[in-house]
Amino acid sequence: MNIRHIAERAGVSVATVSRVLNHPEHVAPKTREKIERIMREAEYTPNWFARGLNFNKTGTIGLMIPHILNSVHMEIAKGVDDVAHQKECIALMCNVENDREKERRYLQWLMKRRVDGIIFISSSLGKRDFEQVQEQGIPIVLIGAYRDNDNFHVVSVDYRQAAMKAVNHLLGNGYRKIAFLYGETPQVENEQKVEGYKQAIRDAGLSLSEDFLKRVENTIEGGYLGAKKLMELAQPPKAIFTSSDYLAFGAMDALKDKNLKIPEDVAIIGFDNVRMSNLVEPKLTTVEIPLHKMGVYGARLLFDRIEEENSPYPGAILLQPKLKIRKSSGHKERIGEMF
Amino acid sequence: MNIRHIAERAGVSVATVSRVLNHPEHVAPKTREKIERIMREAEYTPNWFARGLNFNKTGTIGLMIPHILNSVHMEIAKGVDDVAHQKECIALMCNVENDREKERRYLQWLMKRRVDGIIFISSSLGKRDFEQVQEQGIPIVLIGAYRDNDNFHVVSVDYRQAAMKAVNHLLGNGYRKIAFLYGETPQVENEQKVEGYKQAIRDAGLSLSEDFLKRVENTIEGGYLGAKKLMELAQPPKAIFTSSDYLAFGAMDALKDKNLKIPEDVAIIGFDNVRMSNLVEPKLTTVEIPLHKMGVYGARLLFDRIEEENSPYPGAILLQPKLKIRKSSGHKERIGEMF
Repeated sequence: MNIRHIAERAGVSVATVSRVLNHPEHVAPKTREKIERIMREAEYTPNWFARGLNFNKTGTIGLMIPHILNSVHMEIAKGVDDVAHQKECIALMCNVENDREKERRYLQWLMKRRVDGIIFISSSLGKRDFEQVQEQGIPIVLIGAYRDNDNFHVVSVDYRQAAMKAVNHLLGNGYRKIAFLYGETPQVENEQKVEGYKQAIRDAGLSLSEDFLKRVENTIEGGYLGAKKLMELAQPPKAIFTSSDYLAFGAMDALKDKNLKIPEDVAIIGFDNVRMSNLVEPKLTTVEIPLHKMGVYGARLLFDRIEEENSPYPGAILLQPKLKIRKSSGHKERIGEMF
Repeated sequence: MNIRHIAERAGVSVATVSRVLNHPEHVAPKTREKIERIMREAEYTPNWFARGLNFNKTGTIGLMIPHILNSVHMEIAKGVDDVAHQKECIALMCNVENDREKERRYLQWLMKRRVDGIIFISSSLGKRDFEQVQEQGIPIVLIGAYRDNDNFHVVSVDYRQAAMKAVNHLLGNGYRKIAFLYGETPQVENEQKVEGYKQAIRDAGLSLSEDFLKRVENTIEGGYLGAKKLMELAQPPKAIFTSSDYLAFGAMDALKDKNLKIPEDVAIIGFDNVRMSNLVEPKLTTVEIPLHKMGVYGARLLFDRIEEENSPYPGAILLQPKLKIRKSSGHKERIGEMF
């Protein structure tokens, strides 16, 4: 008994039956009741209920999310969930809050329940944890930046290059006093951005100032406090590059509170290109990371591994980010007049 | 063998052992290795691994989230997860995307795995679905607005009152042509807001215009398109109240694209008070919903039910929202001059 049989019996289209399952409020009550009665009589359950019986698979994957209030992670998670849904598979999302103990606890739970695979987003766990999961025969995929990741499937971004691009853009616009405000998390990713920042500053023949490297909590509040401290330096920066758009939003708020104009007094560049970066004022120049795509690619890698029992080579996908130039980073012509 | 025994054997404090579990990067490598070796030798596993054996409980709850890219839902989810974590319980988050079929599929999965309880956030499922879960002996709690909810534990907000407050504020500021731009989802919640809007308009002795009631997709894009259409009316509104901050962000963007000033040309009020509402320009007047608290209260209700086998009375918690007055809704004094 499938959806087509139900439609035939009810004398309606397949689309109408589907609508009863998904959006019954858009179906006339009489039609809906009729279709629902036929489904009950036929003991019809949509396809995916029958899954999880074949091939020793549970039809479930685990998804480790560092922090659910950070939309960067949620956009990646959405990509994973979209693929899982296509595969008629359930994705169980776990909010691990950058807490290793909490993440291990979830991991233990997922392994015990024999999920078909696990995706880690910017996990704070290490090589040994990941190996333990694989030893249990559970495929994993890592999304984000990791140390020591040669033996795993990884989807990542060239964060070092990305940071260089952002700093070079500021240098090209005439800025010399460029600070980097970066988050404590995700740790490895931000270390790579710090490297890129330093490299770009050195390549430009400028000297590095430790005062201009500021590490804060990766939240809007962290960005606010960090930018405030930077602007209170005896020699404050003329431009601030941040490791996330959230930090940039906080930094912009701090600058406004100090009656500083963006970009006239201080230029800002963010990182991630979250949806809101185009809606703040001025619109934020930022590094565009293909977040949804990272999730999609990660999930595809995982399902490839789940479906072919022996996928021999660990694979890595390294994506190149783009700079999204908007108003907050200044314009070459106008900046030229200022310096 | 517990964390104290490990600490004694290693000759360190309990805090140090805990740090090795949570933030090993902050522990000197030598100390860390020593503690890790002792833990391995003692086959020590933190407390929560041992759970799920007693009282027939699995130490797991399910959490149904309408859309993971909407931070309103994620702030509620965070409240639930915080309580679950305190209770040493795992919260499995499911992204149901306002898709009834997808939600039923998750539900089936969670019921089969005998989770201890399930929390629904603004679910599109109905009374019969919820009853089926309870009949299986699995306690549930509903967060948000529902029809026909007398037999369930519900945490909700007086959305009707909330909408009235917002519209009355605009009326008090001198506005008469007030439109309401509302989302297709969450359906019941937004119906209550529509009622409140209509009531406030009628109470002011004004006539309702169907043109001023606009239903759109509950996204930034939906808000953009909706506001654009409203401003293209022969008699455009002077103020727009929206059913979510996301819609307000989109509406503000549309007004800016039309070179209209907020609030001088058109005033805006949002709904929810998400974090970003204080960072857009002008800062958004909005209805403050205690999102995190809703999650916390919902989870506490659920755990009360899980822990006492027979909790006799379904309980409801109805929270009163507050108006958060910022710049986007105009000022009485200045508005006075305009009309």
